[in-house]
Amino acid sequence: MFRYQILIEYVGTNYRGWQIQTKGKTIQGLIQKKISELLKEDIILIGSGRTDTGVHAIEQSAHFDCKLKIKKLSNFLKSINYFLNKFNIAILKIIRRKKDFHARFSAKKRIYKYVIFNQLSKPIIENQRGWHIIKRLNLEIMKKGAKMLIGTKDFSTFRASSCRAPSPIKTISVAKVKSVKNKIEIEFRSKSFLQKQVRSMVGCLKYLGEGKWTLKKFKNVMNSKKRSFCAPPAPPEGLYLMRVIY
Amino acid sequence: MFRYQILIEYVGTNYRGWQIQTKGKTIQGLIQKKISELLKEDIILIGSGRTDTGVHAIEQSAHFDCKLKIKKLSNFLKSINYFLNKFNIAILKIIRRKKDFHARFSAKKRIYKYVIFNQLSKPIIENQRGWHIIKRLNLEIMKKGAKMLIGTKDFSTFRASSCRAPSPIKTISVAKVKSVKNKIEIEFRSKSFLQKQVRSMVGCLKYLGEGKWTLKKFKNVMNSKKRSFCAPPAPPEGLYLMRVIY
Repeated sequence: MFRYQILIEYVGTNYRGWQIQTKGKTIQGLIQKKISELLKEDIILIGSGRTDTGVHAIEQSAHFDCKLKIKKLSNFLKSINYFLNKFNIAILKIIRRKKDFHARFSAKKRIYKYVIFNQLSKPIIENQRGWHIIKRLNLEIMKKGAKMLIGTKDFSTFRASSCRAPSPIKTISVAKVKSVKNKIEIEFRSKSFLQKQVRSMVGCLKYLGEGKWTLKKFKNVMNSKKRSFCAPPAPPEGLYLMRVIY
Repeated sequence: MFRYQILIEYVGTNYRGWQIQTKGKTIQGLIQKKISELLKEDIILIGSGRTDTGVHAIEQSAHFDCKLKIKKLSNFLKSINYFLNKFNIAILKIIRRKKDFHARFSAKKRIYKYVIFNQLSKPIIENQRGWHIIKRLNLEIMKKGAKMLIGTKDFSTFRASSCRAPSPIKTISVAKVKSVKNKIEIEFRSKSFLQKQVRSMVGCLKYLGEGKWTLKKFKNVMNSKKRSFCAPPAPPEGLYLMRVIY
């Protein structure tokens, strides 16, 4: 058996997320099917992690095993992209890996970005590529809030009730707010995240930014470890899986 | 009569350009119709200039006159965008103007940006938002070429045969190539441009970047004033009207 890693870009808008579901179109499902057809053997595609319905990826990572050795990787890329591009998916790269490489378990860091369009009018050129917030957000207080999220903490507040992770304790190494004109980008880095953690944190940062919460309130919510205190999670169209570091 | 200026964002992909045509959907046509319906009077919308089929605008500028004084500009914006947003158009701003303001003739500077995705795989997140070029382009030589375009010159080489401008002489004040990762952006500033001038210049810069032409050849082509020597114009999906300065 040969093991290959692939890097994947996709627009999540019309998918029920990454992970194969009993019902609905998924990114994992589509790619797995197309690779299986191309190689004429049933492969199983293992992603670095799930992305929810509507969430995008600049560079998702996954691996699969196959009996056939893929001779020309660049030809494989061309053929698979010929199928996938029309479905808003591209395989950016394919890399031969040793048996000890695992897309999910070997990951050292996951980088996510959340995009907000803080402007009066609906984004047109970047339609469905970010969260449209009309009310002017206070970036300085959001930066301070983001800083509070850095470190090893119990993130129960920001955890979906359906989350099955064995522990709510995670370590965030980067939580950074920056802006260019009306576009606000919030970057998060961690070995792994809880389900809906990024969108829940962004929802709370938005409450901070619009003056609904003070920094003290934000801190109390975070420390409460109570899901019920969390702000509504930010919508999926602003979330991007940027990169997985191994 | 009252005069209003509007600023407009649009995705050009599904339009036959800005200017009303005898056949086909145009941006000017659609906005003019919707404003007329909203104000219940027939207005004529005058743009700062045409954009071709498939060309986008971050901020096009236009004006119209109407008998009715628009009382609440923010309500007008909301109503008109309610109609236009689903057609990939947004009115960003509406400003009351004096009679001597003219969207086309008062313009002091027009800023265009051309976007190239210089990468192996087709852009997915930014699909139809730039020119996809696989071959690695030499940015340094493109920067030198762009510099040569700056100044007051006869731009006949870069002028569409259908162009009706009285003179081929234009003054380019900015022609700047920059890049972030695989995304190359080329910015041009001039009081006005000839028809297809920007896309023709970008087509020639691309020939430079891929090593098809030397800087000497590029200069000769520019100085020849012969359209037949020009490289094929860059495709419309990479072109953005950025802003009109008055």
